[in-house]
Amino acid sequence: MRVFNFSAGPAMLPLPVLEEAQRDLVDHRGSGQSVMEMSHRSPQYDGIHQGALAALRRLLAVPDGYDVLLLQGGASLQFSMVPMNLMQPRRRADYVLTGSWSEKALAEARREGEARVAGSSEESSFTRIPRGEELDLDPQADYLHVTTNNTIAGTQWQEEHWASLATTSPAGGVPLVADASSDVLSRPVDVSRFGLVYAGAQKNLGPAGVTVVVVRKELVERAPESLPTMLQYRTHAAKDSLYNTPPTWAVYVLSMACRWVEEQGGTAALGELNRRKAETLYAALDAGGFYRGTAEPASRSWMNVTFRLPSEELERRFLAEAEAAGLLNLKGHRSVGGVRASLYNAMPQAGVDALVALMADFERRMG
Amino acid sequence: MRVFNFSAGPAMLPLPVLEEAQRDLVDHRGSGQSVMEMSHRSPQYDGIHQGALAALRRLLAVPDGYDVLLLQGGASLQFSMVPMNLMQPRRRADYVLTGSWSEKALAEARREGEARVAGSSEESSFTRIPRGEELDLDPQADYLHVTTNNTIAGTQWQEEHWASLATTSPAGGVPLVADASSDVLSRPVDVSRFGLVYAGAQKNLGPAGVTVVVVRKELVERAPESLPTMLQYRTHAAKDSLYNTPPTWAVYVLSMACRWVEEQGGTAALGELNRRKAETLYAALDAGGFYRGTAEPASRSWMNVTFRLPSEELERRFLAEAEAAGLLNLKGHRSVGGVRASLYNAMPQAGVDALVALMADFERRMG
Repeated sequence: MRVFNFSAGPAMLPLPVLEEAQRDLVDHRGSGQSVMEMSHRSPQYDGIHQGALAALRRLLAVPDGYDVLLLQGGASLQFSMVPMNLMQPRRRADYVLTGSWSEKALAEARREGEARVAGSSEESSFTRIPRGEELDLDPQADYLHVTTNNTIAGTQWQEEHWASLATTSPAGGVPLVADASSDVLSRPVDVSRFGLVYAGAQKNLGPAGVTVVVVRKELVERAPESLPTMLQYRTHAAKDSLYNTPPTWAVYVLSMACRWVEEQGGTAALGELNRRKAETLYAALDAGGFYRGTAEPASRSWMNVTFRLPSEELERRFLAEAEAAGLLNLKGHRSVGGVRASLYNAMPQAGVDALVALMADFERRMG
Repeated sequence: MRVFNFSAGPAMLPLPVLEEAQRDLVDHRGSGQSVMEMSHRSPQYDGIHQGALAALRRLLAVPDGYDVLLLQGGASLQFSMVPMNLMQPRRRADYVLTGSWSEKALAEARREGEARVAGSSEESSFTRIPRGEELDLDPQADYLHVTTNNTIAGTQWQEEHWASLATTSPAGGVPLVADASSDVLSRPVDVSRFGLVYAGAQKNLGPAGVTVVVVRKELVERAPESLPTMLQYRTHAAKDSLYNTPPTWAVYVLSMACRWVEEQGGTAALGELNRRKAETLYAALDAGGFYRGTAEPASRSWMNVTFRLPSEELERRFLAEAEAAGLLNLKGHRSVGGVRASLYNAMPQAGVDALVALMADFERRMG
């Protein structure tokens, strides 16, 4: 029986992608070899690699003037590569804190230069996204860093947050840098709003081991040439991310996941599916007093829905019943407790429906 | 038809490993999910991860006092991580140049401190490994870096090179650092000889996307705490390489490749198989004047066998015939031309026998 895996990442992949990967694993389309065995300089792999780059460019509607890179090291390495490459020339950057991951990004930036907290919702336990008018922005910052979706507190920048940032920001020339690891490709996004967007693949794009970076070409050129070669964006931009051996299998699965998104109708259609999944679950939370969503409504994430039950004992029983029913990894992050349902692209509506049915049944018995 | 892939890497994987990966891809051992979908914090993935670390420790006979790390970024990132972490306290290191990859390692080290050429076979076009007495070693260097196998020129440090290094080195206290990307796990090696060994997985260990580092614990502690967190060995050593999301699928396939090596009888038995493959091919090269090995006999690699034919036109015809016969990727590196047969762990004797048969037939017709 296939389980519904609500993990915050790595997470579910579309079943057709897994089935195709399985079918072709030993002998990729009559080539007599696995994708894992292909030289990264072979025409076969090059087709896969360029196909992945092209699909990302189409799906994200990446404008001209941007490079799309496939890197390794996850968002954690981007926490350092961003300041190493972009904290130029003033070595000053602004960070908006919306949870643990933005705090980690800030900590790494502080190893490279002067990184300032331009705004934070820490006093609200990160249960909301600050609005533009709450931020104290440095118009001379080299960049402004945000985390678009926050997996632990279950919040996400919504259109009204972006709009309020745009209208209140005095920092017109300051490039916006976004960690979009947990909501990339989950709905349409205007890439031209950003100077750089990065995302580990293992939530919405594919398996762990490949990281997507979309970056404006003029920012690629900011980095000092003295940086380690592998840590300069320009190294990878100049070589179509084939400077060294890429994580070929992860790129291959990502390319199939992108094709699956296109088959769903692209990010617009997928966004509607993701909206419906999230609304189904939030409606269940709001229907009575038994379950209580922890994020403020205007900041609620479509990707990670966080909630509590009336007691920790009930939460334990609920999680045990969910696990027994094949609804896995619903435990909230250890730093906040409670329940967390991650609803990334590959989580079907049926998984959410099963969760909501269990919730109703559990409340009936325990409420 | 399964091909014989003589690629310098990524390279062949053992067929039983691919078949098991295929069988379990969609539903890993009844878990209802793919390994690619598993949370890296789940007990299922943790078993795979710890199993991979333990298997590497057994197979490489890693002594106490060493950490085994699973990282990302390939050898190319290690070219920088090694000097960033280990070029302490004097910021001086020695490099032995035996080909392009050691030159790249040197270039990155020079971004971090004073890296000196302690010896080189460049004047012989890198067709041999320098002997210990040819080296000019700095007894105060923070480390001495070597490349144990050289994929382009087809040379490899043999026991007599290590012995001559040990007896002539004035640098008793200087840790030896080795890039073993292209011969790791291919025969028994005394790890205690080294302070640090690193290897990208995609030749002898598994698929691209994971890098193995074996490092003495006291060297782990050398790095300045100001380095980016992800670039400090101590970060990964302290967390069993689970500080951030590891490249889970690549680690999984690596763990199966390690089990396959154990089933072959470990590195001792595999070393004999690899020796036999190499000797089969070198015997064919030495049998007459048509084919000519390019590496000096005492430095010949068991992993990458490089040779020439009487003319480039004959080389082109030979490579075309090989490709048509399912013997792929035999073209020498573009910087040196000729023919290169990479005989990593998963290349069966049958592949070498088929190559040698083709060579004999080709010579009969063309010689």
